[in-house]
Amino acid sequence: MRDILDAVASGELSPAEAEAKLAGYTTTGAGRFDAARETRRGVPEAILAEGKTPDETATLAAAAVETSGRALITRASHAHVDAVKAMLSDADIDSDPRARTIVATEPGFERPTIDASVGIVTGGTSDAEAAGEAAAVLREMGASTERIEDVGVAHLGRVLDHLETLREMDVLIVAAGREGALPTVVAGLVNTPVIGLPVSTGYGHGGDGEAAMLGMIQSCTVLSVVNVDAGYIAGAQAGLIARAVADARDD
Amino acid sequence: MRDILDAVASGELSPAEAEAKLAGYTTTGAGRFDAARETRRGVPEAILAEGKTPDETATLAAAAVETSGRALITRASHAHVDAVKAMLSDADIDSDPRARTIVATEPGFERPTIDASVGIVTGGTSDAEAAGEAAAVLREMGASTERIEDVGVAHLGRVLDHLETLREMDVLIVAAGREGALPTVVAGLVNTPVIGLPVSTGYGHGGDGEAAMLGMIQSCTVLSVVNVDAGYIAGAQAGLIARAVADARDD
Amino acid sequence: MRDILDAVASGELSPAEAEAKLAGYTTTGAGRFDAARETRRGVPEAILAEGKTPDETATLAAAAVETSGRALITRASHAHVDAVKAMLSDADIDSDPRARTIVATEPGFERPTIDASVGIVTGGTSDAEAAGEAAAVLREMGASTERIEDVGVAHLGRVLDHLETLREMDVLIVAAGREGALPTVVAGLVNTPVIGLPVSTGYGHGGDGEAAMLGMIQSCTVLSVVNVDAGYIAGAQAGLIARAVADARDD
Amino acid sequence: MRDILDAVASGELSPAEAEAKLAGYTTTGAGRFDAARETRRGVPEAILAEGKTPDETATLAAAAVETSGRALITRASHAHVDAVKAMLSDADIDSDPRARTIVATEPGFERPTIDASVGIVTGGTSDAEAAGEAAAVLREMGASTERIEDVGVAHLGRVLDHLETLREMDVLIVAAGREGALPTVVAGLVNTPVIGLPVSTGYGHGGDGEAAMLGMIQSCTVLSVVNVDAGYIAGAQAGLIARAVADARDD
Amino acid sequence: MRDILDAVASGELSPAEAEAKLAGYTTTGAGRFDAARETRRGVPEAILAEGKTPDETATLAAAAVETSGRALITRASHAHVDAVKAMLSDADIDSDPRARTIVATEPGFERPTIDASVGIVTGGTSDAEAAGEAAAVLREMGASTERIEDVGVAHLGRVLDHLETLREMDVLIVAAGREGALPTVVAGLVNTPVIGLPVSTGYGHGGDGEAAMLGMIQSCTVLSVVNVDAGYIAGAQAGLIARAVADARDD
Amino acid sequence: MRDILDAVASGELSPAEAEAKLAGYTTTGAGRFDAARETRRGVPEAILAEGKTPDETATLAAAAVETSGRALITRASHAHVDAVKAMLSDADIDSDPRARTIVATEPGFERPTIDASVGIVTGGTSDAEAAGEAAAVLREMGASTERIEDVGVAHLGRVLDHLETLREMDVLIVAAGREGALPTVVAGLVNTPVIGLPVSTGYGHGGDGEAAMLGMIQSCTVLSVVNVDAGYIAGAQAGLIARAVADARDD
Amino acid sequence: MRDILDAVASGELSPAEAEAKLAGYTTTGAGRFDAARETRRGVPEAILAEGKTPDETATLAAAAVETSGRALITRASHAHVDAVKAMLSDADIDSDPRARTIVATEPGFERPTIDASVGIVTGGTSDAEAAGEAAAVLREMGASTERIEDVGVAHLGRVLDHLETLREMDVLIVAAGREGALPTVVAGLVNTPVIGLPVSTGYGHGGDGEAAMLGMIQSCTVLSVVNVDAGYIAGAQAGLIARAVADARDD
Amino acid sequence: MRDILDAVASGELSPAEAEAKLAGYTTTGAGRFDAARETRRGVPEAILAEGKTPDETATLAAAAVETSGRALITRASHAHVDAVKAMLSDADIDSDPRARTIVATEPGFERPTIDASVGIVTGGTSDAEAAGEAAAVLREMGASTERIEDVGVAHLGRVLDHLETLREMDVLIVAAGREGALPTVVAGLVNTPVIGLPVSTGYGHGGDGEAAMLGMIQSCTVLSVVNVDAGYIAGAQAGLIARAVADARDD
Repeated sequence: MRDILDAVASGELSPAEAEAKLAGYTTTGAGRFDAARETRRGVPEAILAEGKTPDETATLAAAAVETSGRALITRASHAHVDAVKAMLSDADIDSDPRARTIVATEPGFERPTIDASVGIVTGGTSDAEAAGEAAAVLREMGASTERIEDVGVAHLGRVLDHLETLREMDVLIVAAGREGALPTVVAGLVNTPVIGLPVSTGYGHGGDGEAAMLGMIQSCTVLSVVNVDAGYIAGAQAGLIARAVADARDD
Repeated sequence: MRDILDAVASGELSPAEAEAKLAGYTTTGAGRFDAARETRRGVPEAILAEGKTPDETATLAAAAVETSGRALITRASHAHVDAVKAMLSDADIDSDPRARTIVATEPGFERPTIDASVGIVTGGTSDAEAAGEAAAVLREMGASTERIEDVGVAHLGRVLDHLETLREMDVLIVAAGREGALPTVVAGLVNTPVIGLPVSTGYGHGGDGEAAMLGMIQSCTVLSVVNVDAGYIAGAQAGLIARAVADARDD
Repeated sequence: MRDILDAVASGELSPAEAEAKLAGYTTTGAGRFDAARETRRGVPEAILAEGKTPDETATLAAAAVETSGRALITRASHAHVDAVKAMLSDADIDSDPRARTIVATEPGFERPTIDASVGIVTGGTSDAEAAGEAAAVLREMGASTERIEDVGVAHLGRVLDHLETLREMDVLIVAAGREGALPTVVAGLVNTPVIGLPVSTGYGHGGDGEAAMLGMIQSCTVLSVVNVDAGYIAGAQAGLIARAVADARDD
Repeated sequence: MRDILDAVASGELSPAEAEAKLAGYTTTGAGRFDAARETRRGVPEAILAEGKTPDETATLAAAAVETSGRALITRASHAHVDAVKAMLSDADIDSDPRARTIVATEPGFERPTIDASVGIVTGGTSDAEAAGEAAAVLREMGASTERIEDVGVAHLGRVLDHLETLREMDVLIVAAGREGALPTVVAGLVNTPVIGLPVSTGYGHGGDGEAAMLGMIQSCTVLSVVNVDAGYIAGAQAGLIARAVADARDD
Repeated sequence: MRDILDAVASGELSPAEAEAKLAGYTTTGAGRFDAARETRRGVPEAILAEGKTPDETATLAAAAVETSGRALITRASHAHVDAVKAMLSDADIDSDPRARTIVATEPGFERPTIDASVGIVTGGTSDAEAAGEAAAVLREMGASTERIEDVGVAHLGRVLDHLETLREMDVLIVAAGREGALPTVVAGLVNTPVIGLPVSTGYGHGGDGEAAMLGMIQSCTVLSVVNVDAGYIAGAQAGLIARAVADARDD
Repeated sequence: MRDILDAVASGELSPAEAEAKLAGYTTTGAGRFDAARETRRGVPEAILAEGKTPDETATLAAAAVETSGRALITRASHAHVDAVKAMLSDADIDSDPRARTIVATEPGFERPTIDASVGIVTGGTSDAEAAGEAAAVLREMGASTERIEDVGVAHLGRVLDHLETLREMDVLIVAAGREGALPTVVAGLVNTPVIGLPVSTGYGHGGDGEAAMLGMIQSCTVLSVVNVDAGYIAGAQAGLIARAVADARDD
Repeated sequence: MRDILDAVASGELSPAEAEAKLAGYTTTGAGRFDAARETRRGVPEAILAEGKTPDETATLAAAAVETSGRALITRASHAHVDAVKAMLSDADIDSDPRARTIVATEPGFERPTIDASVGIVTGGTSDAEAAGEAAAVLREMGASTERIEDVGVAHLGRVLDHLETLREMDVLIVAAGREGALPTVVAGLVNTPVIGLPVSTGYGHGGDGEAAMLGMIQSCTVLSVVNVDAGYIAGAQAGLIARAVADARDD
Repeated sequence: MRDILDAVASGELSPAEAEAKLAGYTTTGAGRFDAARETRRGVPEAILAEGKTPDETATLAAAAVETSGRALITRASHAHVDAVKAMLSDADIDSDPRARTIVATEPGFERPTIDASVGIVTGGTSDAEAAGEAAAVLREMGASTERIEDVGVAHLGRVLDHLETLREMDVLIVAAGREGALPTVVAGLVNTPVIGLPVSTGYGHGGDGEAAMLGMIQSCTVLSVVNVDAGYIAGAQAGLIARAVADARDD
């Protein structure tokens, strides 16, 4: 640390640059892809493909792989997958059409491992994309994940069937659209932290995830919530909690 | 019916007046209190005390008792109760401070009886007023009611404990505030018509019953819904269904 | 019931599984299509075609027919109809382009019959899809339905022309877009339960069914309401009421 | 007009001042009370008492009487009435507690007369304040008004009873709270211009006049609309139409 | 009138049918096109092409021409125009691409004439469609219209240039998008009834006519308002006022 | 567990009751206070004093102390404090007027201890109540808490001053009103899970915590969020995470 | 600057503390009152009295006077004024009941002077508080202000009368409630930067400043906007612009 | 000025025309393109290509170049660029695909020069369009602009790196999407006027710039704000401030 302070004293670094270095990041000339944040929080940055052309997406992915060894792309169409495969012909590409995610890694890239498990609970096929996005970021962070599918508040028996599994997890992500009641029901049955993930199903009044979002925010039990369809945020937050648990486990 | 048409032909009645008479109502000079609607739909009109002075409320109640033998008053404060008792000293007064209802009847008033049962399910004390309003109108319509209290989506065991009772009812009213998930959970367990009654609990984003209302409207199971805190409407709608069932039972 | 409890005691069933069985449903390996709910509530599950590919829709329909003898598909385009016909070549297919519904049944499938009638009231062609969806689910539940079309609050004479029919029904579904006043007008004329079905017509401020929804929620008469364009829910709720009436009639 | 232009040429008046004078108004030193607008549009300015102290209200009323011979005060409490009576001891004071209006005139003040009639239709006591405000401004503008009370969409017979009167009016103001359907129903029955006046009754979702406002804006018939509880605006707009009709009648 | 009442007395007509006839309309078997409303209110019904196929639109237009001699179609695309021309080859077709209106009349159709004038004020090209829709219905109702274009609150000089014309009109429609201030500015300068017509220009926060609508509803001067882009309603309401004025002029 | 299953087999317990017992809760006759949930999730139930009379609050507190040894009361006024002190004269009472919390414990009550630390970051005095509520529930759950006050996005230096402390915590709650940017800024600097707690400061457009809530939901970094002013929920969620960490630490 | 870097090098200061010092602020132990921000931006911090007790307000005011020589208090009631006068008996107190502001200065306090002028335009008495708040902060920053009152879009002549004055200002703040059109009209007439200040007048749909805010945001001319009733922000922003102009003038 | 007044006196000019001329604008027959406003405020009018056909856009651009020597076109697609190039073959065309702007000038056109600098701060590529639009209008107004890119609240180091540059600017535009916190952070570090420019990034609850807009409106520091994506307005407002500063500098 001494050398950083010397650099400040000598004028080579501004105090802000010094602070930045001490905080574990650097301002590279690379611009757009924030390798620093990845280092800083241990959360892989995601490239949101939606609203970008396949070509723009692939270029960013290449920059990410070059800088950090890996690119995580969300909300990708088939055209995005094709463009990434074409441009990163040397990389290992793993794409999941249901989750609409792509992960590209340079050969030999080693993921971290977190000794903690995250359960991802969904009610139906319409939750698959958001849940898959969460699963992708968790896998990249190294947590082990368990998918608990096809449960729903209108089918209580299915929730109860999985009770033991739900209680064994270190953290739970519970995705739900429509009225968004599932996280409330699940959180009432476990003593694990639950993250509610509203999904943009539903139509008409309160549709597009609005009712689900408000229902989770107003839950009569203990929950925290992320944005509608924000599978990446839910996964990364669960990953941060899982890593805190795993770090404690390692001590 | 002949004499009505004669009265039209002779000019004593306008076609509109004739239609009115055929439809079972008359335009009395009494103005405000609609005794006709009561006759027509079999639903006692309610006098909403909120926003009226005790004196105005009592005057309307007196008009209602005189016209129809009974007054049903909702959202009444202690002052409203006192004013009604003072002005209708000859009537039988039955007031319920938790439901904030008053029923005044002339001596000897006979309620109808409906051979059908309505279950009213609530999660906590904050649902008591809306549920009590529903119970009051149902009692006046003659249906038998069953209160199932202190159940909630965060306490699934309590719902399951009451399953048999829930399934025995002809109609269910399920009240819920906060995220409003209880009607969805209950409707998933029974084959009875369920009416969702959102309650204005909750604060902050989506509070005051907004999340509950949207959650019930977006329910992933089969429900119909009434306005926030609209206990009177929920009760009357359940009463109409109960009467349809009872009428069929009587055939 | 004894054998279920034995299975619990012996560890073959968890208490939750036991509860599930007692409640009349089973968790099949089939996953997605909930034959159990159909058995439990007597309401045919609907497959929402909107947002699914023709292929996905047809696959789910095949699963539904295999499990329960029937598939009910809503919001189907011509492409969905073609895919269902191609995949279920042995089934009887009945599709209604105005209602955008498809019903596929295995040969010899027998619908239930409910001895009760449901009136479906609409104001114009723009209500036809929602009303047709309601009619489809009611037909599958076995209720007899009567369509009362082209009435509207700006044409009171037409409402009054149908008064007798409206009063003969056991339940009424009243669909309306724009200002959504028709259910209020109809409910003021009958003593039958009325379910308001807002339709997403209208444009500009309060358009897309918003004004209609709020108007029905705020109705000055007794109504319950379903979501905008939720013809399936309106139909199923009317069907549950009709069945309750018919069951009483059968006693 | 020549002298005004001379004043511009000589620099006594700016072009803007000239324009103002030609347009029929003057910028007095009196400040707050716009006697000019009254002259210009023939609509008496209203002093909104709500949010002003009794003393402030009375002071403005005195300024209005001094400038234009008359003060029209809306949303006045008893305290406002008392303060106006005390400060304007020489004026004729006419206050209406249901409409919450006060009109103060200097002795001998002569109202205009408009040979046209405006119908003001209301559904119940909760519409009385807004309707009374409209009636007050119309009386001050000189139009004759007819009150048609206690009609409502849930009581169609009452609407039909008044059909002849409704059709005789030159303009109609139709006030309604809750779902706000009455203006639509009335406008479907007459060939008179109808102004919808939403009233802030109703509670819960879409309450406080929101559903009524949206319903009138979305009406499936021909209407124009004013703000919630804006009785003064509805009355003044109806008065402008009535005067246009009366002016034509006088030609 | 006597024969209608006889028909009621003899059972040939229900009271509702009688009322309908007295009110000036009949329930034809034609269903959809409400020729009756046209007779009743003197306002030509509009066929909204948006959301209908060209074929459906042309079929409705044919029905309208057959029933009432004329069809007025709004929000029509080129395809709608072509289909109408093809199906109504004998009719006179007048289409306006800026207003997106089509008027088809049977040969020899005679429009009414209203001796009153309506000014239609707009700020720019984006108001042309709504204003043109208003002009079309006014022309069909027989009123004379004056277009005052390219004025706006940010160009006060242009408003003032047209002041004399504005003051000569019997009614004014003032269209505005963005912040919607023009109707307020115009209404402050004239003593004519002003109808505010919000237009769906604007983007971002309060865009799509929302700010314009709210601004007109909250206007600090006297106005009434119609829905966003509701040129037909604005025109028809102005036409009803113009006709009331013209009728008075004729007396 | 054997004896529970025996009780099921013998009919003493329903499967639902069995499930309930296995889940760690019992349905007591006490009704309102859910001691079971406390046992189940390890989160002390809170009694929300707001909207309850002092007497009702004290009665519930007495029930809570009797059942679980402790009562946690939130949003309490001075009158609530006095009533609780009067009714629970034997209990230890700890009230915090800034946080508006009361904790009552029976003599000798022993809190759990969690070997994990939670940082509670606030920007100003207006965040004190929500933050204090979070601190109270964390203290009752046994976590150690650190308050980091008077930091804000408009005073970045203060945030940076506390960087080391922020990074040492196991979980962070960051409260913010107005634009709610502080949790985003903090989460960008640490690799700890951050829970955003919006506070109902701010006025006008987006006030009362609305902008803060939306800003946290839309954060460009990784966060989860609770309702506006939901200090209790934020604290309990942080407590669940802290306990998960501590349990891992203990392994 | 050298000594700061030395302090960093020696470990006396963290880089963040160094950055803070270089930026012109220090973290005092005083906590709440941000004297630093005042130094940094040259904008006096305001103490918002609303929601604080008179005593809390006076205590903060004392801290402000002690730290910076001056306290600026907004939204103060008479009770706040009395408390400030009592606690700061040695200070010079200047309170303005219409603006609801208090300024307390230590004897001999010298305000800065900015050689630039700010015009504050209002339409009526209801804008006085917000405009007065803006004027207070501008006076404390040293700018000269000109009040242009009682102009409004419905009284264009008054706007035009003040055109010369409006054009002489360096910056304009234009306050408006209701439909908020005045800033648009003014900005169309001048080439000066205009800041729109929406005011919470208006009632019903779009009331409480909502329509005014949206109208300014959607203005068809060039404006920037602050929050509803945010007189302090409008004044401070105008002050920053005025100072930039004055600094340029001084060069 | 004398001759204008003479023209008024002689009737050649109306007072309004005189006022218009004095204000520096004329009503040309050209209609749509407001060359006058450009002269009046020194802000080049923008032609919004979005919603216009390429041909319409090019025609307007030709009119603008003919009238004022220059056309500024915003939100242009490639097709718009091609059409403008084709129609204005003699003009100098400068198009920026990232900003989606086109500037066409007649040969030899001379831009003004403003001796003041505007900083435009952005967080990422999604802010490029709005920022580029602001830069385009500033360049046309003659201000020098500095782009500060890729800073964001989650990367504080980057903000601090640019602190010196930020403080050297005369005005700052700070664009931000998602939670919109960047303008608040920047404004807390400088004593320059800051204009917040919300950008329509973000999805789900509060997406499309809604959270960013509300966050800037609620900022706890001194800012003024423009509409979502309103780069042109932000640039023009900054340009007006810059010119005021430059004019002072020139004195």
